[in-house]
Amino acid sequence: MVARYKKQGNWNFFLKTFGDVVGEDGVIRRKDELLTYECDGLSSYRQRPELVLLPRTTEEVAEILRLCDLYQIPWVARGAGTGLSGGALPVENGILIVTARMNKIINIDLENQQIVVQPGIINNWVTQAVSGAGFYYAPDPSSQIICSIGGNVAENSGGVHCLKYGVTTNHVLGLKLVIPDGKILDVGGSVPEMPGYDLTGLFVGSEGTLGIATEITLRILKKPESVCVILADFTSMEAAATTVADIIGAGIIPAGMEIMDNLSINAVEDVVALGCYPRDAAAILLVEIDGLEVEVKTSKHRVNELCKKNGARNITTANDAETRMKLWKGRKAAFAAAGKVSPDYFVQDGVIPRTKLSSVLKEIEELSQKYGYRIANVFHAGDGNLHPLILYDNSVPGAFETVEEIGGEILKLCVKVGGSISGEHGIGADKKCYMPDMFTETDLETMRFVNEVFNPLRLANPGKIFPTPRMCGEAANRQSGERFRIIERF
Amino acid sequence: MVARYKKQGNWNFFLKTFGDVVGEDGVIRRKDELLTYECDGLSSYRQRPELVLLPRTTEEVAEILRLCDLYQIPWVARGAGTGLSGGALPVENGILIVTARMNKIINIDLENQQIVVQPGIINNWVTQAVSGAGFYYAPDPSSQIICSIGGNVAENSGGVHCLKYGVTTNHVLGLKLVIPDGKILDVGGSVPEMPGYDLTGLFVGSEGTLGIATEITLRILKKPESVCVILADFTSMEAAATTVADIIGAGIIPAGMEIMDNLSINAVEDVVALGCYPRDAAAILLVEIDGLEVEVKTSKHRVNELCKKNGARNITTANDAETRMKLWKGRKAAFAAAGKVSPDYFVQDGVIPRTKLSSVLKEIEELSQKYGYRIANVFHAGDGNLHPLILYDNSVPGAFETVEEIGGEILKLCVKVGGSISGEHGIGADKKCYMPDMFTETDLETMRFVNEVFNPLRLANPGKIFPTPRMCGEAANRQSGERFRIIERF
Repeated sequence: MVARYKKQGNWNFFLKTFGDVVGEDGVIRRKDELLTYECDGLSSYRQRPELVLLPRTTEEVAEILRLCDLYQIPWVARGAGTGLSGGALPVENGILIVTARMNKIINIDLENQQIVVQPGIINNWVTQAVSGAGFYYAPDPSSQIICSIGGNVAENSGGVHCLKYGVTTNHVLGLKLVIPDGKILDVGGSVPEMPGYDLTGLFVGSEGTLGIATEITLRILKKPESVCVILADFTSMEAAATTVADIIGAGIIPAGMEIMDNLSINAVEDVVALGCYPRDAAAILLVEIDGLEVEVKTSKHRVNELCKKNGARNITTANDAETRMKLWKGRKAAFAAAGKVSPDYFVQDGVIPRTKLSSVLKEIEELSQKYGYRIANVFHAGDGNLHPLILYDNSVPGAFETVEEIGGEILKLCVKVGGSISGEHGIGADKKCYMPDMFTETDLETMRFVNEVFNPLRLANPGKIFPTPRMCGEAANRQSGERFRIIERF
Repeated sequence: MVARYKKQGNWNFFLKTFGDVVGEDGVIRRKDELLTYECDGLSSYRQRPELVLLPRTTEEVAEILRLCDLYQIPWVARGAGTGLSGGALPVENGILIVTARMNKIINIDLENQQIVVQPGIINNWVTQAVSGAGFYYAPDPSSQIICSIGGNVAENSGGVHCLKYGVTTNHVLGLKLVIPDGKILDVGGSVPEMPGYDLTGLFVGSEGTLGIATEITLRILKKPESVCVILADFTSMEAAATTVADIIGAGIIPAGMEIMDNLSINAVEDVVALGCYPRDAAAILLVEIDGLEVEVKTSKHRVNELCKKNGARNITTANDAETRMKLWKGRKAAFAAAGKVSPDYFVQDGVIPRTKLSSVLKEIEELSQKYGYRIANVFHAGDGNLHPLILYDNSVPGAFETVEEIGGEILKLCVKVGGSISGEHGIGADKKCYMPDMFTETDLETMRFVNEVFNPLRLANPGKIFPTPRMCGEAANRQSGERFRIIERF
């Protein structure tokens, strides 16, 4: 451990060793500078890393991991640090490997619709790099102008357009990986569906616990010919949710389909003052349709009919980019708005089957009343991916604990109806104690064994994903031992 | 091993043990009855299993695997046995677990567009079960009227419509698995993108080497409003291939896009006598477009323009089901036709980047001339998934060996241009010796370690996927030992 090396007086040697790998300007060690890296987007967990390293190449990453393996130093990889589940939370006596300088585009192959990038590149840059030629990169987390592709791969990020186009894993064709012993692996490739085990799929969403992706081959898509956004408002949440089910039921797959409830609408109107979301609506529904012009025209008409059928009061349609942006602006500002109408907010991320939307939202309303905290609902309705925002005041003693409890209740509700404890923010440090609500001990044990294939010394992002007794009051992390005895025979 | 038990005179006890699990009618042990199970669709490899078991439930499968684990009996799972890479080839002194009696639909949830089935159900039955309600199951291997969903999951099967809709892995939401020690695992679920490691994705395409799927949750899709098929013929293969690139380049994603060369066209015309594929064409292109009626209309027009631009001589469009079926009939009969115009044929399966189609087909033609064997090309052009059919006469001494060599040359060609040694038929027993052409020793070693997490005693489908010295004359399967020593510490 770093701490041990410090005690032994080897600290300077140790710094020099890493400095030789990444260059002196690639090492951050001053306490005030390390402050930036104490947490990611989930600020309720904090841990100062001993050291931050900024490699530039696959070889540098491999050399760092070889040294960590040799000295048994735990490490955490970090992209832009925008994650919301504490996946990039540093580990005590560990180092943080930041990919910010690995921000190159390695290759663009428009003919085969793919791009190879380093992990530190910003999500939005990918689209910018190919936009001129008429292409774009589909997964669009709301942090897309600041989050990194490496982080997106780690967390299998989603976004508004994932209803039609799928999440990150559907757009990663191949990866160059450095695994914790410093070996370099090439998984997947430039053609889809390679033979052998799908290690690409295994790695995407593994939250930095299996290694570091140093080159990422992404699929890029042709920009649609036509795009339109429809805004409809309803006097009941149920009507909005039924409209979502009806649209999907009619065989239409919109690019995105989002709902905001009355509390969110008013928060947004208070803060952004758009004037286009009616303050007295119980819910608004935003539907984006893209594709060929004729297709968009027909789908638009159908969506309109379905909104009317379910009692929509007003329906606005935006065809040009400027008006579309205006309709989306409120949705995109929703989280920030919640932060302005309340001293603090806690965003939860859970998934439910689309057909359970109405009933689960009612139960969330009941939780809100039971605990006496306002909960705003803004969500990817088409995917059943809820984002309840629990509004609270952190200066009130015990408030945060209560909010965490409400958040937990919401997740348990998601699991109860056949959903999931995470839609797109990952498990990280934040949700690992809910993993046993979703998975049996056999399921989790299998995942742990898979982890140990890559990470036998448990140096890669320890303390994430898997529940530990410390966090959850359960002895879930005990070793069965049995399987390892069997492995020893070979 | 079974053989050992036989020698020890425990054979009757052993039979009784398995008979107690699956019932007497669930055990096949007569030599003449076992003949059926000696090979799958790849008849060049044969091995008689010691015993065939026909379980009906997850619990029976779990009990069989627990017994195999206890007695250290190797086993192979088999669906309908239509696989083309010998993935279901039995193992010496092993048992074969046949899923034919696990053919129930467990649940249909139209609202959430999913169906839960047992593995022995036939691919086509899934569509039949939901067709009345306007849904279908997208992956459509050409064997879909006889192949099983369990086999499709094992081999990650593709099909004509996978260009637009993806292969099996894109349609499997969750699995109930029995792993080799008899434990039952639930991976994935009824909502997509579950947290934790993507074990569902890992399992799909693992060719029965990680366990047996006993319940499979599949995504079903709404049937498209409109479908049309376009047949265009060209005087050069290059023109047909360029048209494919142009169609994709125009942002159109057809449901399927297939090319047949002159030799295939004539084989089909000889045998099926359709009269709709011109015998003097260098290549025909079949394009299926589906979607909303207006969308199909527009895309159809564009595809027509692009065919003309590349010098198509005749363009036929089929809108009604009957004419569409007629245009497809020749393509679907292509393999059978090859078997009638030649005493034997060998079908290869490889993938290349779409942009390399013309050049690779030229090189295949050169191989054909070099070796003096006719090669017919029928392929999923949109995916770059080649299916060269090497025509030969098995009664000629040495012919099969030469054909295997040509097949190997074609695979090496695929790898050279950045493609893959398997598009949709899997690796099985047949292609494992080509794995080192595609993967580094580190890549393969990592896959082997992942295998050992599930399959530490190496009882699950041994001798598949991974190259062995026996097959390839290489010491690729040596144990590094190093990593296991590390694991022992835990």
